[in-house]
Amino acid sequence: MDVSEIAEKLVLGDRRALARGITLVESRRADHRAQALDLASRLRGTGRQALRIGLSGTPGVGKSTFIESFGLMLVAQGLRVAVLAVDPSSARSGGSILGDKTRMDRLSRTPAAFIRPSPSQTHLGGVARRTREAVALCEAAGFDVVLIETVGVGQSETVVAQLSDLFILLLAPAGGDELQGVKRGIMEMADMILVNKADGDLKSAALRTCADYAGALRLLRRRPQDPPDFPKAMTVSALHDSGLATAWGEMRTLNDWRRSHGHWDQNRAEQSRHWFEDEVRQGLLAALTENPDMRAKMRAAGDAVAQGQTTPDAAAATLLAALAARP
Amino acid sequence: MDVSEIAEKLVLGDRRALARGITLVESRRADHRAQALDLASRLRGTGRQALRIGLSGTPGVGKSTFIESFGLMLVAQGLRVAVLAVDPSSARSGGSILGDKTRMDRLSRTPAAFIRPSPSQTHLGGVARRTREAVALCEAAGFDVVLIETVGVGQSETVVAQLSDLFILLLAPAGGDELQGVKRGIMEMADMILVNKADGDLKSAALRTCADYAGALRLLRRRPQDPPDFPKAMTVSALHDSGLATAWGEMRTLNDWRRSHGHWDQNRAEQSRHWFEDEVRQGLLAALTENPDMRAKMRAAGDAVAQGQTTPDAAAATLLAALAARP
Repeated sequence: MDVSEIAEKLVLGDRRALARGITLVESRRADHRAQALDLASRLRGTGRQALRIGLSGTPGVGKSTFIESFGLMLVAQGLRVAVLAVDPSSARSGGSILGDKTRMDRLSRTPAAFIRPSPSQTHLGGVARRTREAVALCEAAGFDVVLIETVGVGQSETVVAQLSDLFILLLAPAGGDELQGVKRGIMEMADMILVNKADGDLKSAALRTCADYAGALRLLRRRPQDPPDFPKAMTVSALHDSGLATAWGEMRTLNDWRRSHGHWDQNRAEQSRHWFEDEVRQGLLAALTENPDMRAKMRAAGDAVAQGQTTPDAAAATLLAALAARP
Repeated sequence: MDVSEIAEKLVLGDRRALARGITLVESRRADHRAQALDLASRLRGTGRQALRIGLSGTPGVGKSTFIESFGLMLVAQGLRVAVLAVDPSSARSGGSILGDKTRMDRLSRTPAAFIRPSPSQTHLGGVARRTREAVALCEAAGFDVVLIETVGVGQSETVVAQLSDLFILLLAPAGGDELQGVKRGIMEMADMILVNKADGDLKSAALRTCADYAGALRLLRRRPQDPPDFPKAMTVSALHDSGLATAWGEMRTLNDWRRSHGHWDQNRAEQSRHWFEDEVRQGLLAALTENPDMRAKMRAAGDAVAQGQTTPDAAAATLLAALAARP
């Protein structure tokens, strides 16, 4: 399948073409990179937009079960659902890479769903770019909802939040002091907190945990992009399919409100600006190692520093001044 | 006290002058920055070198007690000891800032010791530079041992390891599966693992934990900068002053071996190169926001991206190409 064929089939919603497109996007080969850019420019015209839902949850909160149940519910409503994973640790814990499809067995066998395992690549900057491009491909392929999941290792939640229209935090029932485990910065990014496993023996613990988080969310300052009563904390049971429809209803309420109040557009614009600035930063840093002239200068100055002829700071100041003095 | 007076008194070991010097180093004011650079150049000639020991341990492992007991032991041997903290989270958990001296009460009242609380600054890049400069001031002031401690939040362990001759991981006794809690990357950086609280009820747990980590260290590949039998895992009780002399003996054995085999010099040279490259990277990124011309270009291109006139990647590629094309 060449790029034009991928593009043609992809806009028709062909999952194999989408998978091929994402493979190009994920590749580090220069020819694949050129094809990926070609593909992106061919697809730019579709103008299709999905609802991008970021989902963060540590192992054990039942994320796969949630995505499977939630995804099947959306499919039953006639929606097409794509699932992408951002997992900077996947290269190390190799098991999860192959596991993505098996752990969402029913959803992966649904024609209206597309599940893409996490790429085996640890560099977070690269992961962000490829996920951003994969999201764009899913949108061009006509998916209505793109779920972007992360296990929340290091900075990956920030990456996912910056790619999403809605950022959902999935938690497990726990004692009250477990609140400490969720960093304040993550709480501030969350558009909704879902406490999973609100079933059987854990139901009352889930309700308590939910009430704790609802209280914590109220303590955070109100954000302009939230209607009254948001962000919300709710309980769900992915295992028993309970609470999911209510949660989805709240997500749509929140998203509709933002669309009609200009926040949705503003958020996407700010995200685009963020990723532009991020690309510039990454590109500048990459030039230090990829541009032969720069690399030689870095090497020579680094040698002088290593031999104690000058200090790290003085050598850096000299090199930076020379760069800045260029017209 | 002006800079020349600070320099004069500092080389005589005056702790007040050292504290003033570090205040200059930590300040973000431009005039203070200039004075800090002036001070650094005045002190460059001393040629004094301390043993730099990085110490990482999460809250609860007894880090303060360890530093107090270990520091007092070194002082009793006639050594002068400085303690610096790298805590990128200190600005948030304000309590620990003022707590540094009180939690090491006896050591802080010892004339041969100097304790500097963590600066209230979260930007890790800035913390690294200031800590590096503070270490240099402590060396110029004639301290024999500089302890650089961190709570190990995010990247701070890497920063401390890159500033240290020896990097020590302090742990508390725990069940075997607690091993999972220490990231592999941290284990690979550790020159020694000390399991604290090997006393009373926790003694047998400490011995078990120590054996587990000793086994884990053996599984890691041998590093050229380690003599046979290193890195080691040992138990200590900071509370009961037990094991500290043995641990110090092993640290000196390791350090002497590295000095006589060229690894010490090589390590410091590589660290200098690392910090030079880090400074260049930070400086390049800072230029994006500080250089008016660059800032204007970033702003204009960012606006075009936010308005959907171009994509983040295309705009970044254009801007980077323009920068690279400069002679």
